[in-house]
Amino acid sequence: MKIKYAEMTNHLGSSAVRDILKITQGSDIISLAGGLPAEELFPVEAVREAYNRALAADGSALQYGLTEGYLPLREQIAARLTVQGLPVSAAEMLLTTGSQQAIDLLCKVLLDPGDAVLVEAPTYLAALQVLGTYRADIHVVASDEQGMLPEQLEEQLRLRRPKLLYAVPTFNNPSGATWSRERREQVVELCRKHGVLILEDNPYGEIAFDESPGAYPPTLAAIDRSLGGEPSVAYTGTFSKIVAPALRTGWIAGPRELIGMVAKAKQAADLHSSAIDQRALHELLQRFDLESHIRLISREYQSRMKLLSAELTSRNWEGTHFLEPRGGMFLWLSLAGHINTAELLPLAVRQGVAFVPGEVFYSARPQKNAMRLNFTHTRPELLPLAVQRLEAALTMYAERLPAL
Amino acid sequence: MKIKYAEMTNHLGSSAVRDILKITQGSDIISLAGGLPAEELFPVEAVREAYNRALAADGSALQYGLTEGYLPLREQIAARLTVQGLPVSAAEMLLTTGSQQAIDLLCKVLLDPGDAVLVEAPTYLAALQVLGTYRADIHVVASDEQGMLPEQLEEQLRLRRPKLLYAVPTFNNPSGATWSRERREQVVELCRKHGVLILEDNPYGEIAFDESPGAYPPTLAAIDRSLGGEPSVAYTGTFSKIVAPALRTGWIAGPRELIGMVAKAKQAADLHSSAIDQRALHELLQRFDLESHIRLISREYQSRMKLLSAELTSRNWEGTHFLEPRGGMFLWLSLAGHINTAELLPLAVRQGVAFVPGEVFYSARPQKNAMRLNFTHTRPELLPLAVQRLEAALTMYAERLPAL
Repeated sequence: MKIKYAEMTNHLGSSAVRDILKITQGSDIISLAGGLPAEELFPVEAVREAYNRALAADGSALQYGLTEGYLPLREQIAARLTVQGLPVSAAEMLLTTGSQQAIDLLCKVLLDPGDAVLVEAPTYLAALQVLGTYRADIHVVASDEQGMLPEQLEEQLRLRRPKLLYAVPTFNNPSGATWSRERREQVVELCRKHGVLILEDNPYGEIAFDESPGAYPPTLAAIDRSLGGEPSVAYTGTFSKIVAPALRTGWIAGPRELIGMVAKAKQAADLHSSAIDQRALHELLQRFDLESHIRLISREYQSRMKLLSAELTSRNWEGTHFLEPRGGMFLWLSLAGHINTAELLPLAVRQGVAFVPGEVFYSARPQKNAMRLNFTHTRPELLPLAVQRLEAALTMYAERLPAL
Repeated sequence: MKIKYAEMTNHLGSSAVRDILKITQGSDIISLAGGLPAEELFPVEAVREAYNRALAADGSALQYGLTEGYLPLREQIAARLTVQGLPVSAAEMLLTTGSQQAIDLLCKVLLDPGDAVLVEAPTYLAALQVLGTYRADIHVVASDEQGMLPEQLEEQLRLRRPKLLYAVPTFNNPSGATWSRERREQVVELCRKHGVLILEDNPYGEIAFDESPGAYPPTLAAIDRSLGGEPSVAYTGTFSKIVAPALRTGWIAGPRELIGMVAKAKQAADLHSSAIDQRALHELLQRFDLESHIRLISREYQSRMKLLSAELTSRNWEGTHFLEPRGGMFLWLSLAGHINTAELLPLAVRQGVAFVPGEVFYSARPQKNAMRLNFTHTRPELLPLAVQRLEAALTMYAERLPAL
């Protein structure tokens, strides 16, 4: 039988990152490709106890739950966000299967084919995939190291009349960049002025290396709320990076009407996400010192980033440039302009190291000489070897050895 | 800010069932409305042990997993399906967030606005919702108690050139009906002849009251496979009814190419479903006697159905008709033709009993004098009281008392 697919399937690329992960799985390749947290730091015992407590009572924990998610967990998340400067209530929030589903459902209720959406470049690959499946018209707003350029943003807002602006302004995936406070305020004000919703995707914001108070600017959502009136920022977060990804529990907070619409879409999509995982997270947050755990993993990730950074600096490859990220999980490495990292990758895999070529993080006009390096998943003792292998691949590339 | 939504939101009704559930939650209303399993029969202790075992090893259980789902669980499901007469491999299967997500993702990759889909009437409400969100052109194939009528099906296949036929041929939600073997064979043959994919939704098939061998016909998927060649049936199942809904673990099995496309759509939708729940189910299936548990709950549900059936029969309301279902969770009650059950519902809620009005299970031309009664969630000792309250509501209705 010849199956006739929907038009959207022509816009469904497989994720280059996941394809690379499949190649490297189970091999002795050192993978700096995946956006994976360090497995050895997962609070396995605390999670196990949390499931035990969640399942200690009667069968009600195993019954169908609300589409919006387990209320006590939403209340805990709302309280944490409030402490972080974003005062929201449980009614303005919905729990999702990772923050990926929050991005998907928001785009589903907002975007018709051809609707314009503004993004940074480079930006989160799987958000570009979602925008592709809804056949959005993606436009890039130029940025510098401080964030989106306000003049460029205003021009695009006028020109494209977008329905949505999508951004990862804190410890960006893949670039590691963090927008300045001034740029954040300008972006929020411009979007409010033009009546354009912002989706602030913040999976990494709590993996912050600098522990001094006020080290980081407030979120776009917090700035937006502080201006009063109807919120114009939808904000997504997740437990994937600060507890563990397997529980697939993320959230979206935003205008109540929007959350209601997302809930209707979620009801048709899957009724609700795992209620037992939500109850376990609720139990975890009651007994486990999550804030200390976040400091622990952030310090360890910072130390790995410093190690990777020192290794890269000491190699002093010609034309290479990077900025140390102030948090998150990724370092964005620009090589000499003539190097195509997509062509470099097979050579690197032959040498036993993997990365993600920068080009996949662009909807158009990619930077071909960059790569994303993850520094959180690989054991620190292997990072020097990873860089050494990368150098061997660069040498092969320079010698124009044929790829496998 | 005025949010501009996508066109699909005009087709997003909230579920009448969930709205009723919200009204009845926490009150002393006896709800025969929800499609909920009996909480007191959940194997809570076995589930708790399963999570303990899944979390007994290192942190790998908490890491990101495959979009297709945890391979050892897929292998176990494939083995169970093979024993049940449907020989499939793990590679022809994908794990989803309940079978609801399987329906959603399948429709997402197949349907463009205006594409024709054939359904039974009445049929599963949340499938109609999904079809609505993809703006499918829904057409009903007339049925009798044996299933879809072959002449009508062939006419619709010629006339509508549908992309998909959706059906719940075993212990239908809401009607409780089960198609005969002959009709199943005819439907599969006709769809193969016309090159139309079938989505066989089978969440209830294992809740079978008759334990004699060969009591039930094979699934459409099994019939289709036995004919050889490329499969033309996609088949969904779930652990929600046979273990517990909170784990939100369902699956779709079908042609390998189709499963690959669904996997790409799932990757953009949520990366993957809860991996820890999948690992816990894998552990559960290794140690827990699931087949005995299914017999236990099926016997209990049959006994509750018999009790409800006897109560309804003894009341002998004028013009009332129903068939005892041979499995599943629902009894479909037709009242006298002049009774509108949507208007009856508020009176029933005042009397302390809830049901789902039959009209919500139709895409068009609803049967307004029917209702869906769930017999699995309510404790059996309350069923006589539920029917008594229903009678009081019918008396109020007859006396044309004003609704609340």
